[in-house]
Parts: sequence; C-alpha cells; structure tokens
Amino acid sequence: MTPRAGAPQLVSDGSLPQSAADVCLHLDPATRQDAVRRLRSAKGHPEGVLRMLEDPDVYCVDVLKQVKAVQGALSRINDGVLRSHIRDHVVTAAQRGDTDAIVEELMEALKYRT
Amino acid sequence: MTPRAGAPQLVSDGSLPQSAADVCLHLDPATRQDAVRRLRSAKGHPEGVLRMLEDPDVYCVDVLKQVKAVQGALSRINDGVLRSHIRDHVVTAAQRGDTDAIVEELMEALKYRT
Amino acid sequence: MTPRAGAPQLVSDGSLPQSAADVCLHLDPATRQDAVRRLRSAKGHPEGVLRMLEDPDVYCVDVLKQVKAVQGALSRINDGVLRSHIRDHVVTAAQRGDTDAIVEELMEALKYRT
Amino acid sequence: MTPRAGAPQLVSDGSLPQSAADVCLHLDPATRQDAVRRLRSAKGHPEGVLRMLEDPDVYCVDVLKQVKAVQGALSRINDGVLRSHIRDHVVTAAQRGDTDAIVEELMEALKYRT
Repeated sequence: MTPRAGAPQLVSDGSLPQSAADVCLHLDPATRQDAVRRLRSAKGHPEGVLRMLEDPDVYCVDVLKQVKAVQGALSRINDGVLRSHIRDHVVTAAQRGDTDAIVEELMEALKYRT
Repeated sequence: MTPRAGAPQLVSDGSLPQSAADVCLHLDPATRQDAVRRLRSAKGHPEGVLRMLEDPDVYCVDVLKQVKAVQGALSRINDGVLRSHIRDHVVTAAQRGDTDAIVEELMEALKYRT
Repeated sequence: MTPRAGAPQLVSDGSLPQSAADVCLHLDPATRQDAVRRLRSAKGHPEGVLRMLEDPDVYCVDVLKQVKAVQGALSRINDGVLRSHIRDHVVTAAQRGDTDAIVEELMEALKYRT
Repeated sequence: MTPRAGAPQLVSDGSLPQSAADVCLHLDPATRQDAVRRLRSAKGHPEGVLRMLEDPDVYCVDVLKQVKAVQGALSRINDGVLRSHIRDHVVTAAQRGDTDAIVEELMEALKYRT
C-alpha cells in the first residue's frame, strides 16, 4: 500500500499493524456506502435546478432555495465522513500515542465541515 | 403569465407594465447563462467524488475537501442569482413604491446566501 | 459634514439634496437605538463567560454554547443594521440612479452578514 | 465534586481515577488563561461599537465590519476551547473505552464551532 499524500504517516516504519492503519486511513464501509448513495442522489439535483432555469418565469428565490438544498445534502455527506474520521482517530489514539498530531489532524478536518 | 407561488404579486391588478414585471420576476439572461454553465459543471463533481470513494485507500480529509469544493461552486451560483435579484429590486423600487415589501423580499433572499 | 472613508460619495458635487444623503449615509434612529440596547446587553455577556471560567469544573461544551450565544446576539445587531442599509439604498435608488454602484454596495455589505 | 449537567458522567461509580476525570472534564490551564485574556479584551469591543453609534454620520458597513470582528475574536476563543475538548477526549479515549459516546460528545461540541 502506498501512503497517500496528506494521510497520516502511520505505516512509515512498518511498526504499526496493518489493521490499525486500515482503521485510521480508510472510510468505514457503512459511511462509504451512505456517501455513495447520497452522491448518486446529489447528481440529479443540478438537473432539477437546470430544468427550473429553463422556465422563463422562474423566481430567483426558488433557485436560491434549491441550490441551498443541494448544499445541505452535501453537508450531510461531510458530516458522515467527518464522524468516521473522528471515530478512527479515537479508536487508534492510544496505539498511535502522538496526541498532538491527532489533535491537529482533527482540527484540520473540522475546517471542511460545512 | 401565471404568477408563481412565492413571487411578488406585482401584476395582480394589471396596472404595472409588463416590462417592469419582467425585470422583477425574471433572472437576467447573463446570470441565467452563467448559472446554467456552472450547474452543468457541478453535475460532474459528484462523479469525481464517487470515483474517489472507489479507492479503498481514500483519505477522509480529501473527500471532505472535494465535497466542500462542490459546495463552493454552488455558492457562486447563488451569489450570481442573488446579485440579479438585488438589481431587479433596486431598478424597480421607485416604480413599485412598497419599500417595506421590497426590503422584506431582499432579507428573505439573504437567508439562502451560503 | 465630512464624507467618511468607505461611504458612498453621494454629496461630492453638492447636487444631491441633504435629506437624501442623510437617508443614505445614516442609520435610522430606531435601528441605532436597538443596536445600542443590544450592545449594552452584549457587554455583560463576556463577564458571564469569565465567571464560568472561574469554576474549575466548568464543562467545555457549556463554554462553547455561551460564546456562541453571544455571537448570536451580535448577529441580530448586524441583521438590524443591514436591514437599515438595504432600506436606505432602496429608498434612494431612483434618486441616485447609479444601479451598478448600489448593487455593489449591497453585495459588499452582505459579506458582513453573520 | 458534583458532576455538571451535560458533562460526561465519568465519575458516577467512582471507578475512574480522579486524574482522568480532571483531564476529561476540565479546561487545561493554558486554554483557560487564553480564553480569559481574549474575553477581557472582548469586553471592550462593544464599547468601541457604541462609540461609533454616537457618531451621527457613522456608515452602516463600518458598523457591520466592527461587529463581525468582535464575533471573529469570540470564534478564536471557541477554537481554543474546542481544541482542548478534543485533546481531552483523545487522551482519555483508551481509558474510557466507550467509543460511541466519545464520538457523539465530539460531534455535539462541533455544533458550537463558529
């Protein structure tokens, strides 16, 4: 496995068991499935807004509402991914031991909460 | 033309010239084209995130970043629509005269700024 | 009256009646009074949080909640000021005539909505 | 020590060492001092905005900017408190063992990030 840019370098010295690296670097299957399902649904939303824009009488605020609704659906994806990320860090915290790095990784992830 | 639910009832007594109703109820063509272009582009973004999720080693923060980027693109659509909405209200303000209603409509639209 | 930095240069050529400049540059008295009342109340809130922090057993989330509540009170001040600002621009729009500048001033003000 | 409402009930059966409860329930001294310092400074800010409002020619956008700046200072307090909260949970995670509760407590705290 090649470590990804931006991912915590847990496995650089090979001392960490593979299973812990898996827990920490990967999305859990339920979160991944939920994100996939939501993204497939989110693909259809821009189509809906495009159809609204074909109506010459569309009211601006209706467009604003629809676009905000799509953003809300995307925020729920990020909430799930963030929860999975936090869980991984909580589960592996004792094994990793590098509290400072863990806290920084979590604070970094929070920047992308929307 | 049938007035839309939620749209300002400018034309209820027929006394307002059609052109003013057009200005107030409709997206201007440039904003509409820009929104259409951005939405067509936004349709492809969920596909990109879905491909990321097929990678078993995907790093959570990379997913969070991508989803936030899609939301940013949608916010730029709403900025354009809101600007068009504000312009319509500024242009037709004197003709409409109902300052209170105009201010409420603008404050309502701001709720959907993201 | 000396024009303020950042204020719209309505009066640069002296052609605009003073009363219109007043409407556009100034907070209306009710909004000003409401903002003053809310700010006086907001002065006491940091004191409350400081007292919380003197408790050695204070729970972090209770601090977060209190600080967010203070921010909410400040947001209501800004909502009132923004509403006054929008009203001024709507009322003076026809007299000013410079639609582009008015829209830019309003979009600029929206950046500070919180 | 009386457990606080809303605080994790770590000490209900007395089985957890006092030191761990301290780590988990309390703000660390550096974060507390930083929050106290920032709050003392924040107390003066509403005064500044009140002085602005005494100027009959104050420009609305200048008020909006100042109020937003006060909110930004408060957000930096919450960032510090949240970081301390996350650190406590990371440090005590293995000892507590209740991963689900820890993740929920962290997700709850994130709601107050601003």
